[in-house]
Amino acid sequence: MTSPAVAAYLAERPGIVIPIGATEQHGPDGLIGTDHLCPEAIARRFGARDGVIVAPTLAYGMSQFHLGFAGSISLRPSTLAALIQDLVASLAATGFTRIYFLNGHGGNLAPLRAAIQEFYAARSFAGVTEPCPVHCRVRSWWELDGVDALRKALYGAAEGYHVTPSEVALTLASHPDHIAATDRPAPPPLADMILHGGDNYYDAADFRRRFPDGRVVSDASLATRQHGEDLLALAVDDLAKDFFAFCRSV
Amino acid sequence: MTSPAVAAYLAERPGIVIPIGATEQHGPDGLIGTDHLCPEAIARRFGARDGVIVAPTLAYGMSQFHLGFAGSISLRPSTLAALIQDLVASLAATGFTRIYFLNGHGGNLAPLRAAIQEFYAARSFAGVTEPCPVHCRVRSWWELDGVDALRKALYGAAEGYHVTPSEVALTLASHPDHIAATDRPAPPPLADMILHGGDNYYDAADFRRRFPDGRVVSDASLATRQHGEDLLALAVDDLAKDFFAFCRSV
Amino acid sequence: MTSPAVAAYLAERPGIVIPIGATEQHGPDGLIGTDHLCPEAIARRFGARDGVIVAPTLAYGMSQFHLGFAGSISLRPSTLAALIQDLVASLAATGFTRIYFLNGHGGNLAPLRAAIQEFYAARSFAGVTEPCPVHCRVRSWWELDGVDALRKALYGAAEGYHVTPSEVALTLASHPDHIAATDRPAPPPLADMILHGGDNYYDAADFRRRFPDGRVVSDASLATRQHGEDLLALAVDDLAKDFFAFCRSV
Amino acid sequence: MTSPAVAAYLAERPGIVIPIGATEQHGPDGLIGTDHLCPEAIARRFGARDGVIVAPTLAYGMSQFHLGFAGSISLRPSTLAALIQDLVASLAATGFTRIYFLNGHGGNLAPLRAAIQEFYAARSFAGVTEPCPVHCRVRSWWELDGVDALRKALYGAAEGYHVTPSEVALTLASHPDHIAATDRPAPPPLADMILHGGDNYYDAADFRRRFPDGRVVSDASLATRQHGEDLLALAVDDLAKDFFAFCRSV
Amino acid sequence: MTSPAVAAYLAERPGIVIPIGATEQHGPDGLIGTDHLCPEAIARRFGARDGVIVAPTLAYGMSQFHLGFAGSISLRPSTLAALIQDLVASLAATGFTRIYFLNGHGGNLAPLRAAIQEFYAARSFAGVTEPCPVHCRVRSWWELDGVDALRKALYGAAEGYHVTPSEVALTLASHPDHIAATDRPAPPPLADMILHGGDNYYDAADFRRRFPDGRVVSDASLATRQHGEDLLALAVDDLAKDFFAFCRSV
Amino acid sequence: MTSPAVAAYLAERPGIVIPIGATEQHGPDGLIGTDHLCPEAIARRFGARDGVIVAPTLAYGMSQFHLGFAGSISLRPSTLAALIQDLVASLAATGFTRIYFLNGHGGNLAPLRAAIQEFYAARSFAGVTEPCPVHCRVRSWWELDGVDALRKALYGAAEGYHVTPSEVALTLASHPDHIAATDRPAPPPLADMILHGGDNYYDAADFRRRFPDGRVVSDASLATRQHGEDLLALAVDDLAKDFFAFCRSV
Repeated sequence: MTSPAVAAYLAERPGIVIPIGATEQHGPDGLIGTDHLCPEAIARRFGARDGVIVAPTLAYGMSQFHLGFAGSISLRPSTLAALIQDLVASLAATGFTRIYFLNGHGGNLAPLRAAIQEFYAARSFAGVTEPCPVHCRVRSWWELDGVDALRKALYGAAEGYHVTPSEVALTLASHPDHIAATDRPAPPPLADMILHGGDNYYDAADFRRRFPDGRVVSDASLATRQHGEDLLALAVDDLAKDFFAFCRSV
Repeated sequence: MTSPAVAAYLAERPGIVIPIGATEQHGPDGLIGTDHLCPEAIARRFGARDGVIVAPTLAYGMSQFHLGFAGSISLRPSTLAALIQDLVASLAATGFTRIYFLNGHGGNLAPLRAAIQEFYAARSFAGVTEPCPVHCRVRSWWELDGVDALRKALYGAAEGYHVTPSEVALTLASHPDHIAATDRPAPPPLADMILHGGDNYYDAADFRRRFPDGRVVSDASLATRQHGEDLLALAVDDLAKDFFAFCRSV
Repeated sequence: MTSPAVAAYLAERPGIVIPIGATEQHGPDGLIGTDHLCPEAIARRFGARDGVIVAPTLAYGMSQFHLGFAGSISLRPSTLAALIQDLVASLAATGFTRIYFLNGHGGNLAPLRAAIQEFYAARSFAGVTEPCPVHCRVRSWWELDGVDALRKALYGAAEGYHVTPSEVALTLASHPDHIAATDRPAPPPLADMILHGGDNYYDAADFRRRFPDGRVVSDASLATRQHGEDLLALAVDDLAKDFFAFCRSV
Repeated sequence: MTSPAVAAYLAERPGIVIPIGATEQHGPDGLIGTDHLCPEAIARRFGARDGVIVAPTLAYGMSQFHLGFAGSISLRPSTLAALIQDLVASLAATGFTRIYFLNGHGGNLAPLRAAIQEFYAARSFAGVTEPCPVHCRVRSWWELDGVDALRKALYGAAEGYHVTPSEVALTLASHPDHIAATDRPAPPPLADMILHGGDNYYDAADFRRRFPDGRVVSDASLATRQHGEDLLALAVDDLAKDFFAFCRSV
Repeated sequence: MTSPAVAAYLAERPGIVIPIGATEQHGPDGLIGTDHLCPEAIARRFGARDGVIVAPTLAYGMSQFHLGFAGSISLRPSTLAALIQDLVASLAATGFTRIYFLNGHGGNLAPLRAAIQEFYAARSFAGVTEPCPVHCRVRSWWELDGVDALRKALYGAAEGYHVTPSEVALTLASHPDHIAATDRPAPPPLADMILHGGDNYYDAADFRRRFPDGRVVSDASLATRQHGEDLLALAVDDLAKDFFAFCRSV
Repeated sequence: MTSPAVAAYLAERPGIVIPIGATEQHGPDGLIGTDHLCPEAIARRFGARDGVIVAPTLAYGMSQFHLGFAGSISLRPSTLAALIQDLVASLAATGFTRIYFLNGHGGNLAPLRAAIQEFYAARSFAGVTEPCPVHCRVRSWWELDGVDALRKALYGAAEGYHVTPSEVALTLASHPDHIAATDRPAPPPLADMILHGGDNYYDAADFRRRFPDGRVVSDASLATRQHGEDLLALAVDDLAKDFFAFCRSV
């Protein structure tokens, strides 16, 4: 797009979608870019269909615990937060008032949310009494209603936490030339993994100790390209509904 | 405790509990300190009962959106994150290997998680190949199993998001002299509130516009001291179970 | 307190007291929390007596040189400074104009002062021409007039620099159940210590080399609970005088 | 790619190319993404042809002076620098030793260089006596030998400083569907611009005052798709030569 | 000096002196550079006489409260602290183990001390068990024994806090061509000033309100060049004693 | 100067010159301070001749790659950038609108430029629509027209990159008592050096491996004091022309 085209868009619509993901190992057969390719594919298909601006994808995320595997690249949480703050501030300065982050990596959520709060904190500490007209919203693509229902129906517990069949299916649909459609390896036995329930944290060496081949309790061998097409279609519809409601909200 | 007493404790047990909360408005009748008084009360009762070290409470949290109300004090997300990193690093340097944060304020979660990841990121970026022996765990007291079940049973949708009856009940039990046990005001009509579902963010002025008396879709007039006693007792038991499992985990 | 109660207070009085201390080893028999328990005890007794708001205690301070002993927890100077800035900014945003820090740990002074200057620097660099209405004051409890005279009279050179008899006496009065009232150990011989006069700095390992049992040229075996009661009473009176003069100052 | 594929690559080759650009206004008819689309196009064509790993493009750069125009998004210099440091540190931690930044935006150079120096400074301050095996190299695509000669031959002074005909030509070749091939507007009269020679700096409002339609002394109406094809082909060859020499260097 | 000459020096002596001051208004007749010219003059005379390395003077300090007057230049406390840390780290990396800061501005003390603690904190947090061989010492020139006695004897209460007669006298001796030796203005009446005892803090506008001509309770019209010569001679002797004792200390 | 004298100057002229250099090894015979002594000498001679204010010299720069040699002192790039931002902000707050950095060390350029952009970014992100009246300009003394021509004419390729004959000549003129005028050592053989063309980066250990005696492809034995006098005279004239044009520019 050109700058005048953006200006014209802003006279009609207040919102933008920013896909945010990661570049990190996805086990023996998943694409390193899976976490940014998924939200990018959804957002771009939605943007092209409905005439909504989609910002360039944030392809690097908070992946410190994957640094024990080749091909992983991580930002520190504080770096990712600074990046997000600058994006929000830039968009606010140039006229956007509804900023929608479509996320593809769970590890991004904490820095992303912290960054948005830091953006608002500057106004709150300054005692500004006029509400900030810029609103932000964060959604991970897998928690969109239709997507969430389908992935649970398709995979149940085999969905797991990392290298999930749903994200692999989505890349099978969006990037069919880059990933083997069949003969993808079955998951390692659960007994090889040391998983804690809930909110626990590891460094890269500990992650590798717990999950030696990089997959976390998931069986991506269940994924098919058709699943991916279905998930993608549902995601685009869900995103449309959610994004436009966000744009209309006060 | 004295320093030699801590050294003796560490020869027996690897873990410590850190209560973390906030100091922020809790509507017309809730205590400003509610969010740190609750995890503190639970942790101290547990520590005294089971001989576990409880660190001094982190009474200030990430409350930027409450700065439109007198008595609120906030840290920026980045400040809270720095604080957490230093605590974890100090405890790691002096021999603790299981650090359990018992949280009392939802707004803390993102900076808290980001901080722990930043702590581990230093090792991961440095390429350290030995797993970090220090583990961290984050739990908000209301998500402990028994507590969660009881608060849902007692209050249902009236639990709301801020100035919840469960937290008010807990302060009625832990600080009975500081909060009126009866004649606490009913909640404002829902129609006065502009609430969005999900992951949205506001500055302080916007929060006040949306929630003019500071309460968010909750009816704390339902809270009783007996509820608080019950919640507290369940929380201590749940915490004990979760903490000792965490200490034993590998 | 509730938020409306704070608002009512602010209509009458501009000031608040913030106790700030540390959590660090205090030799073989002193409480790890001594440095925050002392200003907290003084501030709370004063607040309760004279109806002045006392903020939650800052229990963690700048104690890096104590990290060679179990139970010590430290903030980096920059973290403590960020924390202080946020507190001052929060209080300024919500209507306080006289902020009084009652300090209990010498190591906090540099970061604390630097933080307040950083707060004002933002206005000065921006060229704001209206004087900032928010004033800050820093006092360590032992330099309050009456306290200072009494501790010198009671202990002379045995007061020393760390684990002082005056602070131990104060905890004997404020927390009698937590510290042995008698049979506290005599200080190690001075010859065991490598002390430099004046403004010198060490890391934790060097501190431990110089002061192997954690005490620095002090003899806390002289402390009695009655001393503590006397010091506490004097401190409350001194604080009252100093705080109200600060509130009235222009 | 998958993580095992990267590991296999690293056994053969030490190097990676990272395209880095910006998302900023390019006058009335240039693409907002021009500055990242150009190095991305060059790097990807090179990578595909010669089997070299190309990292995901850094699409956001240091564009603060363009924030007066819709569609511009900027990072602060310090944010961009943090981002670069994390990328370099990640790649170093996972086995890359030759990191080649192919740059597409002049405003990135200072933060990019500062970031790399900051990465090395950590080792130098620590007194590490073993030379760091990781080398970094920075090249802007227009300074590659063949490219530089051709753009000067084609456009001379009309190349200008921003919205240059060479970069527009390159996007005509790489993204023919996104930019009008003809009827692109002629440049505004030079008399409308306030340009200083050399190393001067502006904020966004001043930039807009100086260059009201966003173009800086350039005439992109000279650009043709064929020029773009020629520039792209030369750039790929130049990059190959430079990259492989860098990989072999000691 | 050359680098080999420094290497030779380090084989003999471990220490270096760093003069640190400020560039800030000194009332109607004092030199803007007074605060860095004084420690520089003392240190250089000492260095030349006794063969001790004196680092380039840090001429900018923490002077935010003087920014209401032309000619003042300030660093934020955090910037000054970063600067000090880098100096200490550089000197430590290249072989110095006794670093002596000779200070000329009270406002520098908090950031300077905080910075040195931050330097040591890195080791302490990392749990390094070997004492850091690098020691730092901070002295303000006016607290050197002989200097302190003489300035009190000469000026008593007229010494004041800023634009003191002792510092003006010292510049009369060190820079006789740059400051009028006679007819310097008498101080403004005390009644014009709003001074609080003790540890209080202002922004620039408030400082100017309190001290309209920039001087703080001092009468520099008492200063003479001979006083300056005497102070300078005493300071050099005092510094020599203190510095060499510091170099010998363990 | 006094503060009132600066105020009077500002009524006439908007500009100031800030010499910025480094303190780093200059081979076996060059002065450690060469990089700050050169711009200081030029700026001071110019200031004295033409009545222009010259700020105190920034004697420490970004020299991390020289930390393998005794006598080198470096700032991290981020520290230097913070320093520059504070200087610019201070001067802007007190009335200067044309800030001219005269640089003497190539390694400073990236942090210096990044810092100035960071200063402007604050306004641009805030959406300020009035152009900032404060302009900054960066020039390295060797790129001033007359100087550049002469040094190329005198030394050709022997000028090299570090410990250049032109800078050594300049110190021979400005500090004749501090550097040997004759018998300075010839350069080491080129074969001892591992130099890459272009934009490459090293840590200190790698620099020392590449350039064992600290000189980089330069032959300072060609320098004479007369060269230095000529270079200095040309530099002063060039600076005058450039500075006054900058002051007049809009």
